Amino acid sequence: MKIAILTIGNELISGRTADANASFIACEVNQEGWSVEAIMSVGDDFTKIKERLNYLLSLSDAVICTGGLGPTADDITSAAIAAAFGLPLYTDENVLNNIKAIFTRYNLRWIENNAKQAMFPQGAKVIANPVGTAAGFFLNVAGKLVFVIPGVPAEARRMMPEGVLPVLREHFPQGQLHVAKQTIKTFGLSEAAVDNALKDVDFNSLGVSVGFYPVFPENHLVIISRHKNQEEAENRLKRAQEAITARLKKNIFYYGDKTLEEVVAGILLEKKLTLAVAESCTGGLIASRLTDVPGSSDFLERGLVTYSNKSKMELLGVPAAVLEKHGAVSEETAHLMAEGVRKLAGTELGLSATGIAGPSGGSKEKPVGTVYLALTDAKKTVCRHFAFRWDRKRNKLVFSEAALMMIYDYLSGEGKING
Amino acid sequence: MKIAILTIGNELISGRTADANASFIACEVNQEGWSVEAIMSVGDDFTKIKERLNYLLSLSDAVICTGGLGPTADDITSAAIAAAFGLPLYTDENVLNNIKAIFTRYNLRWIENNAKQAMFPQGAKVIANPVGTAAGFFLNVAGKLVFVIPGVPAEARRMMPEGVLPVLREHFPQGQLHVAKQTIKTFGLSEAAVDNALKDVDFNSLGVSVGFYPVFPENHLVIISRHKNQEEAENRLKRAQEAITARLKKNIFYYGDKTLEEVVAGILLEKKLTLAVAESCTGGLIASRLTDVPGSSDFLERGLVTYSNKSKMELLGVPAAVLEKHGAVSEETAHLMAEGVRKLAGTELGLSATGIAGPSGGSKEKPVGTVYLALTDAKKTVCRHFAFRWDRKRNKLVFSEAALMMIYDYLSGEGKING
Repeated sequence: MKIAILTIGNELISGRTADANASFIACEVNQEGWSVEAIMSVGDDFTKIKERLNYLLSLSDAVICTGGLGPTADDITSAAIAAAFGLPLYTDENVLNNIKAIFTRYNLRWIENNAKQAMFPQGAKVIANPVGTAAGFFLNVAGKLVFVIPGVPAEARRMMPEGVLPVLREHFPQGQLHVAKQTIKTFGLSEAAVDNALKDVDFNSLGVSVGFYPVFPENHLVIISRHKNQEEAENRLKRAQEAITARLKKNIFYYGDKTLEEVVAGILLEKKLTLAVAESCTGGLIASRLTDVPGSSDFLERGLVTYSNKSKMELLGVPAAVLEKHGAVSEETAHLMAEGVRKLAGTELGLSATGIAGPSGGSKEKPVGTVYLALTDAKKTVCRHFAFRWDRKRNKLVFSEAALMMIYDYLSGEGKING
Repeated sequence: MKIAILTIGNELISGRTADANASFIACEVNQEGWSVEAIMSVGDDFTKIKERLNYLLSLSDAVICTGGLGPTADDITSAAIAAAFGLPLYTDENVLNNIKAIFTRYNLRWIENNAKQAMFPQGAKVIANPVGTAAGFFLNVAGKLVFVIPGVPAEARRMMPEGVLPVLREHFPQGQLHVAKQTIKTFGLSEAAVDNALKDVDFNSLGVSVGFYPVFPENHLVIISRHKNQEEAENRLKRAQEAITARLKKNIFYYGDKTLEEVVAGILLEKKLTLAVAESCTGGLIASRLTDVPGSSDFLERGLVTYSNKSKMELLGVPAAVLEKHGAVSEETAHLMAEGVRKLAGTELGLSATGIAGPSGGSKEKPVGTVYLALTDAKKTVCRHFAFRWDRKRNKLVFSEAALMMIYDYLSGEGKING
């Protein structure tokens, strides 16, 4: 089956925003075993939306559109698509009541504009939006399908798998092929190094396709096996997964879609271990990532962003002499920060990060991108040292990733803290 | 003048790579005062490249293509474009010698494949590549222009301004209007409310176009004025900006491209004020956003992620009785957290956030999305209370935004802390 993607918005053709949805949608479509015929972006222009949609429909079996479902005057996608097929707009009372309920619940003032988000082309079926007010819809146009979901990436990422793919699967049953699929998440190797490590694996003869998806600072692999027999599809997938695991074991932190912080949180909760974090260069990012996980209050006792030397001394008991002799960015300081925060919080584990995120503050011995991490339990403290090479924000992110990976390795038995 | 963009590559339609070139090229085109008619991506497929190019040419005066200029078998852009116009390919000896010289200089082994990068459609003019072996070219097809540059972002970013724009300017001189442009960043109003507040402004008669760009949790406005006279373009822009400011003053935090954390950091540094932060529900995100700004160590003394009640009592001196009577999520607790962290750190300002990010932990009186923020100086403490309605990660983000906005308002004299 051929699918086209139409992303709609002046922000896309003005160059203000890089399209975040098209590649995500293309990825989901390819993983189903369908092909993407074309991706197109167009501004919020009534006539152009109509024309481009008709062009893409002529190339494909289904078109997935994003954007232009907001309440403002420049959000005209629903009206343009209705006009493309000569359909009137109608108000869906359920959707309208749902939007009004959201406004009431949060004490927002109702503006009549918002009723626009409950209007759909006649004959459209609504696609629920679980995380916003803009519902989507789909239309069956002479056997071809037209989908419309919001352009807000967080909403599109929910509605594509939950609202769009099930309809496509039902409408275009995929012959007799069963699909087995696995995501494998890695950290610590470049895309080229992952590629190189796997170069002796003949995925073709295993009957498995492999995709590389860098999601900074991680590299994700997606392996897909399609076969008329479900068991055979799964067996092939298993063999490919084993071949990858044998080569990348040290760098793999999850088989599936969880984030690293979700994985680490899950293990901490399961083992009933508590954690305290002392951060310098990461500035709170490690604590923030851990607290992105619901239920993190059950293991994260506290986090300290000891940005000044004074706070490292006062809160964590790092002696002035150590800061002076070895510097705030050193193995010794990282070591004492982790032990200090663990003792202060009375937790099983203490984690610390101190480094140089840049752009200034580097030296020849400790260039921008240098970080020292330490993890301690009651018995022992271990440190790791890395030299990364990114800009400030990406250095913070990769530092936090390496710190979470250190907990992961400790908890999963690799590179044990006392080993 | 109307321009279309065609990005070519299997990695784009497989979803493996998000298109990095289209938005850059669109931005450059818009800044010249020309419009982007459509952006399209297509795989490395001979027939499809031909067809899509002809379609885009029918919509526009010029098409800018990227990608498929490498030496490998799947790089077929030049051949497909030559075929689209019935042109033979020829070898440009200058380009060939230049590529061979690069191979010699870097001691690379010459493989005959590489000669492909010196082949162009008959009649094409070469666009030099100052940073790689893949030269680009352009063709004049019955008065319309077709450009092809490499897909490697670093190369496209050089060749667009150096090789493509000069040709376009010469070929379509009537396109050269002067452009004045301004971004206006707001927080605290929904997109619909911003739209509603501006509904009496007649941007058309001001000769200014206005775009709405929601960047959660902010709403950005971009106003653009184009005129043959630079001064008139700027005057029109200024009138539009004044009209917007008069209506949205309370919600505007910046005219330009800085982030809220950069704006707040800039004012703190300018006023030489130091800050300490105590976070509960935001889990370190406020500190992390502030430390995204280079130089933040000059004002952020420390941040405390007091996730447990124990840490609120021990570190910030919040009495157990207050936590018991009013709860950890209350104005009283926020008040004491801000004062506690300011005293502990010895800073001019103390900021706190306590709330319920969700998905659980809400009640009827304090539903998920509730947050109490407090800001204190030596003399006075003020609190703000909000009820948002997002998922956990977006609640954390909007809480942190409201907290930074509270500092901004205090520092810029709006809603003064002691007013």
